[in-house]
Amino acid sequence: MKLQIFDSSLRDGAQGANVSFSVDDKIKVIETLDRLGIDFIEAGNPFSNPAEMQFFQKIAGMKLTHAKIVAFGSTRRKGIAPEEDSNLKSLLAAGTEFVAIFGKSHIMHVTDVIKATPEENLAMIYESVRFLCEHGKKVVFDAEHFFDGYKADAAYAMRALAKAREAGAYCLCLCDTNGGIFPDEAYEITKKVTEAFPDTIVAIHCHNDGGLAVADSIEAVKAGARQIQGTFLGFGERCGNANLSTVICNLQLKRGYECIPPEKLKDIYESAMTIAETANVAIPENQPYIGMSAFAHKAGMHADGVLKYSSSFEHIDPETIGNKRKFLLSEISGKSAIYDKLKNYFPSLDKNGKEMAAIVAELKERALAGYQYEAAEASFVLLVEKLLGKYKSSFDLINYKIINELPAIEGKVASAIVKIRVNGNTKISASDGEGPVHAMDLALRAALADFYPEIARVSLTDFKVRVLDSDKATAAKVRVLITSANASDSWTTVGVSEDVIEASWIALVDSIDYALMRQ
Amino acid sequence: MKLQIFDSSLRDGAQGANVSFSVDDKIKVIETLDRLGIDFIEAGNPFSNPAEMQFFQKIAGMKLTHAKIVAFGSTRRKGIAPEEDSNLKSLLAAGTEFVAIFGKSHIMHVTDVIKATPEENLAMIYESVRFLCEHGKKVVFDAEHFFDGYKADAAYAMRALAKAREAGAYCLCLCDTNGGIFPDEAYEITKKVTEAFPDTIVAIHCHNDGGLAVADSIEAVKAGARQIQGTFLGFGERCGNANLSTVICNLQLKRGYECIPPEKLKDIYESAMTIAETANVAIPENQPYIGMSAFAHKAGMHADGVLKYSSSFEHIDPETIGNKRKFLLSEISGKSAIYDKLKNYFPSLDKNGKEMAAIVAELKERALAGYQYEAAEASFVLLVEKLLGKYKSSFDLINYKIINELPAIEGKVASAIVKIRVNGNTKISASDGEGPVHAMDLALRAALADFYPEIARVSLTDFKVRVLDSDKATAAKVRVLITSANASDSWTTVGVSEDVIEASWIALVDSIDYALMRQ
Repeated sequence: MKLQIFDSSLRDGAQGANVSFSVDDKIKVIETLDRLGIDFIEAGNPFSNPAEMQFFQKIAGMKLTHAKIVAFGSTRRKGIAPEEDSNLKSLLAAGTEFVAIFGKSHIMHVTDVIKATPEENLAMIYESVRFLCEHGKKVVFDAEHFFDGYKADAAYAMRALAKAREAGAYCLCLCDTNGGIFPDEAYEITKKVTEAFPDTIVAIHCHNDGGLAVADSIEAVKAGARQIQGTFLGFGERCGNANLSTVICNLQLKRGYECIPPEKLKDIYESAMTIAETANVAIPENQPYIGMSAFAHKAGMHADGVLKYSSSFEHIDPETIGNKRKFLLSEISGKSAIYDKLKNYFPSLDKNGKEMAAIVAELKERALAGYQYEAAEASFVLLVEKLLGKYKSSFDLINYKIINELPAIEGKVASAIVKIRVNGNTKISASDGEGPVHAMDLALRAALADFYPEIARVSLTDFKVRVLDSDKATAAKVRVLITSANASDSWTTVGVSEDVIEASWIALVDSIDYALMRQ
Repeated sequence: MKLQIFDSSLRDGAQGANVSFSVDDKIKVIETLDRLGIDFIEAGNPFSNPAEMQFFQKIAGMKLTHAKIVAFGSTRRKGIAPEEDSNLKSLLAAGTEFVAIFGKSHIMHVTDVIKATPEENLAMIYESVRFLCEHGKKVVFDAEHFFDGYKADAAYAMRALAKAREAGAYCLCLCDTNGGIFPDEAYEITKKVTEAFPDTIVAIHCHNDGGLAVADSIEAVKAGARQIQGTFLGFGERCGNANLSTVICNLQLKRGYECIPPEKLKDIYESAMTIAETANVAIPENQPYIGMSAFAHKAGMHADGVLKYSSSFEHIDPETIGNKRKFLLSEISGKSAIYDKLKNYFPSLDKNGKEMAAIVAELKERALAGYQYEAAEASFVLLVEKLLGKYKSSFDLINYKIINELPAIEGKVASAIVKIRVNGNTKISASDGEGPVHAMDLALRAALADFYPEIARVSLTDFKVRVLDSDKATAAKVRVLITSANASDSWTTVGVSEDVIEASWIALVDSIDYALMRQ
């Protein structure tokens, strides 16, 4: 059975604490969602400010292959005729076929928040929907606080829906605005609605304040809801909206519903990456289905099980949605997992040969010293190259000297001198910086620039520090992870030392070696 | 009704991609969970390596007020007698009252992964549980892949449970090892088990691969499960385990179960912060209940609604669990909470006075700059002393210079010169060290020794570094936490800077000021 998917990343999602979109970003999100086969894209509230209205005018000419753009607003204000309500007029001016308007369905919100009489609120709903329908719009009616409203006064909440339906609404959307309902409540209350309105599309719109938005959406579908509203990556105010990437995968892969065209399933992972990158938000590593670690296996036994019997520790095949299985490298990884990771880089490696044994032994040694390669595959590849005698260093360090001082000199607390040798030529460079690693990175790049101009296209994008045995206090070992990127790729390297500067240096050298090796 | 809460942060949680704990970290997690009233703490697998076994010996003497420590292992290997199985022997040697062992309950895993006959596997379960019970252990039997196993061959999955029960298991734990089940399945299958074993404690252990672990746990409780396994912050392999902070809040605040003692609810937020800080993992902002944005309202309609009618956009009162409501634009901060913390140190402080207002304003400024005082109360007290004009510095820095170099000199990579003034007398000292902060700490202590001999009794016991905006790479801000201790007490201080050395210096100076102030 086909379900309608309604994405509000650009409207409800933009309420999230760290989410904001430029006009170009919004267009990229719309294109991505359209290509994936999402049915509705709520693109903003044209009444909220002139820029939003201009945006609707700008996208009016966009050629979409599948999705319908939806403009969002509210029922008319109290005491104003629909044709004079500037919010409703904005919805007409936005020029979309579909509009979504929210209205009150919780009696306490009617009397205590907007301070209207129950009948007045019903008139606001009826007249607003009717006005929009008469102007040729298809109307999604968002019944705000519907579930809490149903629990407080079921008859009134149902009357609010009935008014919207009577006025011609295309779809009745049940909102868990506070995000607090449980899956069993989502089922039971949605069931009452789908039974009362058998010929109407019922939608579910959940927030994640109880960590239950995905489950609530699934239960509502079981109770007959046929449209699911949410945001593709779960963006949204407070704890976010129902995460549509999770909902779609769950319902389509495990319950046989069609949320997006089946041939698009394999694009879910990449679409998620594109939207995350556009919003400049990192997808949590442990995000169901699309996270970097969603199919990562660490423990020796588990990794072994997966290799023997692919569904043994995986609920779905990650390739179905375009994600990949990963074996994390750590002291508890078995040889199989390590080999599996290496065979792409070193196809001639023999799983049962002496070289593999040496690699496994070295990894254990390194793990004891505090190295972790799970998140630092580039360093791992370099390490194996060294063990196989295939590594060629791109430069040798003669010496470095990093100085931190207070009071700072011209606002810079750190300066660095780095002297290197490349093919018999030496070069010494210096730089100051915001901190010692910053100064060191700049000085090293300056020294390398003469020999390897391509290094200018590589930049350091992420820097992490972890103190290992922190009970040894300032003499403790430190692990540094550095992520670098060029236009097309990114890679992570690791360094460990009792000295944070030396640990950073080790990771930095690996990151540059790796960049140059791949040219 | 009382439910048992079983936390596996230190065992299953440590399988998570970025999670690792030192021995001291583990002890801090155990203390925090115990104080919160968690019933069971699974502390590791004593058989996995000698360090884990040593850890169990180390914590054997810990005085816990409530929690029971659990050692984790597996059923005996195929073809080995229990008394000769080194894993079972390790469980005895771990010296805990409770042990948890996993065994196979999915027929395909029996035949295809461990390649045993169905009867052989049942014997492994029976004999292992029996052996442990005969040695006085209370045994939690983790039926691995139980739900998938039940769907494949319900009779066999139930026989596996029956064998464990027959052998004397204290608790039968139903594991959704792959994390793929739906809430309705969790309910229906758990119901079959609780009906078949009415006099046994049934536990639920969910993974979050479908984003449903919290919902699945809740539905299992509805079906009669009486123990919930998970990890307090949702740590765990792949997409993590059921997030116990969410489960506890949902079930205790909304369904009336007692998961932890009611008077402990208000400590949930702070416990979560402590565990996150100890694991050096940030809690996602949008995390239900405990996230920084979980009760954040953007100014405008929602914030207005909250002020008019407190439950209008909140599913619970955030203070119940120790979190705070936030208004993102028109911020009204928790003055009461700050005052509550300060009144012990500054009994004459007026809650509604100008000084309190200045403190609240300064704290906001500092939070924007990256300071967090939750884990650094000593720095917080010093900050307030400064604002109240009560602070007297114990020394002034004239300058420091820290040098890192490679190649190292006599094995030391760092050296430091520190010049200070105390009561008009200057003193310059130098030291080398394993790293820059180590050298700096030693040089400062050497300079202070003439003036404050008592400083010799203070030592630095813990050092943590967190990169704040890590996408700014090496120019990012860094937060350093330093814990110091003397014979009777310990205290933590904080420093923030783009320079890790300067951030460490700030925290170090606070830690020494605090020590001298309290003499």
